[in-house]
Amino acid sequence: MPQYATELETPAAIVDLDRLARNLDTMAAYCAVHELALRPHVKTHKAPRIAAEQMRLGAVGLTCATTQELEVMSTVSADLLLAHPPVGIPKIHRALSIDREVALSFALDNVEVAIPLANVARDAARPVGVLVEVDLGMHRVGVQTPADAVRLAREISDLGGLRYDGILFYPGHIREPQEQRQDALLHELAEDLGQVIQALAGADLGPRVVSGGSTPIGWRIHEVPGITEVRPGTYVYNDRTTAALGACDWEDCALTVLATVVSVAVPGQAVIDAGSKALGREPLPGESASLGGYGALEDRPEVIVTRLSEEHGILDLSASDWRPSIGDQVRVVPNHVCYVVNLFDTIFGMRDTVVETHWPVTARGRDGNRPVWSR
Amino acid sequence: MPQYATELETPAAIVDLDRLARNLDTMAAYCAVHELALRPHVKTHKAPRIAAEQMRLGAVGLTCATTQELEVMSTVSADLLLAHPPVGIPKIHRALSIDREVALSFALDNVEVAIPLANVARDAARPVGVLVEVDLGMHRVGVQTPADAVRLAREISDLGGLRYDGILFYPGHIREPQEQRQDALLHELAEDLGQVIQALAGADLGPRVVSGGSTPIGWRIHEVPGITEVRPGTYVYNDRTTAALGACDWEDCALTVLATVVSVAVPGQAVIDAGSKALGREPLPGESASLGGYGALEDRPEVIVTRLSEEHGILDLSASDWRPSIGDQVRVVPNHVCYVVNLFDTIFGMRDTVVETHWPVTARGRDGNRPVWSR
Repeated sequence: MPQYATELETPAAIVDLDRLARNLDTMAAYCAVHELALRPHVKTHKAPRIAAEQMRLGAVGLTCATTQELEVMSTVSADLLLAHPPVGIPKIHRALSIDREVALSFALDNVEVAIPLANVARDAARPVGVLVEVDLGMHRVGVQTPADAVRLAREISDLGGLRYDGILFYPGHIREPQEQRQDALLHELAEDLGQVIQALAGADLGPRVVSGGSTPIGWRIHEVPGITEVRPGTYVYNDRTTAALGACDWEDCALTVLATVVSVAVPGQAVIDAGSKALGREPLPGESASLGGYGALEDRPEVIVTRLSEEHGILDLSASDWRPSIGDQVRVVPNHVCYVVNLFDTIFGMRDTVVETHWPVTARGRDGNRPVWSR
Repeated sequence: MPQYATELETPAAIVDLDRLARNLDTMAAYCAVHELALRPHVKTHKAPRIAAEQMRLGAVGLTCATTQELEVMSTVSADLLLAHPPVGIPKIHRALSIDREVALSFALDNVEVAIPLANVARDAARPVGVLVEVDLGMHRVGVQTPADAVRLAREISDLGGLRYDGILFYPGHIREPQEQRQDALLHELAEDLGQVIQALAGADLGPRVVSGGSTPIGWRIHEVPGITEVRPGTYVYNDRTTAALGACDWEDCALTVLATVVSVAVPGQAVIDAGSKALGREPLPGESASLGGYGALEDRPEVIVTRLSEEHGILDLSASDWRPSIGDQVRVVPNHVCYVVNLFDTIFGMRDTVVETHWPVTARGRDGNRPVWSR
């Protein structure tokens, strides 16, 4: 195994172990102080090793987005939530074939999703929890009104085979660095959520679980009355987006893509061996989009990856007097770390330039369809 | 193994086997007619199975972008080109540890890249070919002038340890559906290339190999005098970009992402389980960007994937009277198929709705740093 960064073949995904530990501690402490159940989203790291550390630090369970994540994370947590509608018999069967010791729950927004799930759960005589997903401004999935939430909660309760646990929302539309506007959006969210909770309570369907929260507004989610549980993901590593939104400092970005300068032929730029297949073509959100690019150098944030081919990244040198040489290694803070992790199979844990450890990104990919012998 | 599309867990990458076969044949025939050596770029499929078929149909060798691709493709071809600067000792060692029966060559644009490569090649007493990469308008990598090409070709010839074979360029900047403008760009390219070839010939460094070409202008590259070899990749599968550029018909798109409708809660849209981690956030290039989105339904190209989360894709229904139900399967033609393939581990080969076969995307990922026992 490589012992130093210079021995790593690039591009490689590397993690500053001290920053990772600090990020894990900070979120655990925040949730403890505010008495919020922490159910971290594993999509960011897809690694049992980090999930196990999250559980050790007090997480009540884990949030998953795919059946691959469910399957892998069942080895480190006995309480898993799929925060994605479980549609399609192959998906339902795969999820419900997970070890029976593991408590499973699912978020969904339509009884048509619940019916086949209830049928399989009933046949398997397996308890399955359901959270009604409500749309509080993201406009992606989720029932649209308090009345619809009540109707779906009742339908689920009446189906037999499923246990109605409460509600879930994803406030991914609140990505706002400006405090006053963040205040306004949070206030609106709290109002809308209050109406849903009140309507459910009035129908004798008061939610035991009210699950929300994301990294960008993670640190203020306790201001929203009624929330019982949060599901942040990105906080373990953070990224250029989280920093641009003011939800972390630049020094909290724990994962970078180690890359090598491979060409300086075209004036005004340098080319690294990390392209879109290593960095992803993920833009910065909202107002921060004007910063441009797909990542920035950790030690020179003014140097931005402005163009990508699949295996080439173009560093714009116009804002810097740094003139790299061929063979120089750089560390790129990516725009969206959850995306980058999914492009790699192995993560290297570093202290400074020393490779201390490595771990597999076990839950990347989707081998639900692969023959069992090849997994 | 699943036998029908409905048994596949989605998202899944599926290939129409008849279209794939036709695409392979068409390019092989084009190159045969115009007496161009075909060295397909494997980045699109990353699969030995398809590479072997390309070789059977007359390819002279294969083009790779990563050492992972080199290593994997050494099992099906004895003539491999790395069309990416080989920088960094781990990368050079990995490449040159490939079976000695395999002829290796590399594209590069600076003697600083050539020196360590020559040292390792000399130590290993292994013949290694080099192509001087020239920039003919892409402005990514490549020497900038005919004089620079001559200088680098001479430096390589004088180094010892490397064999100067000729020149390489990538005309990726010519992505132009409009014929008159394509004419102009091709004409400019031919002029520039002519000057490079002439300068080299005048210095007694006339190139044996002149390697260029890509899928978008693949069908016209024979119009450029002096070209001996082409390196198209995307043509095996094609995609929404290739179709938008007029370089293939919609019915030539062989790979689609099979997805399931999981939510219809938000008016005017449907949500599928293929998000950015299945489709990539790849825009259409140039003028075709105005078409928008990240993919379109194969049988309803007016229905576009307009928004992506990691595991959610939003279908805009405003241009269609189609109203899907939860559980409906759809086939999405992605904007950029090379990117999509790299997100999956397995490809399923279909005829209509029958799953006839499947193959692994063996050359995805970068396990050069992984411990040997875990590969």
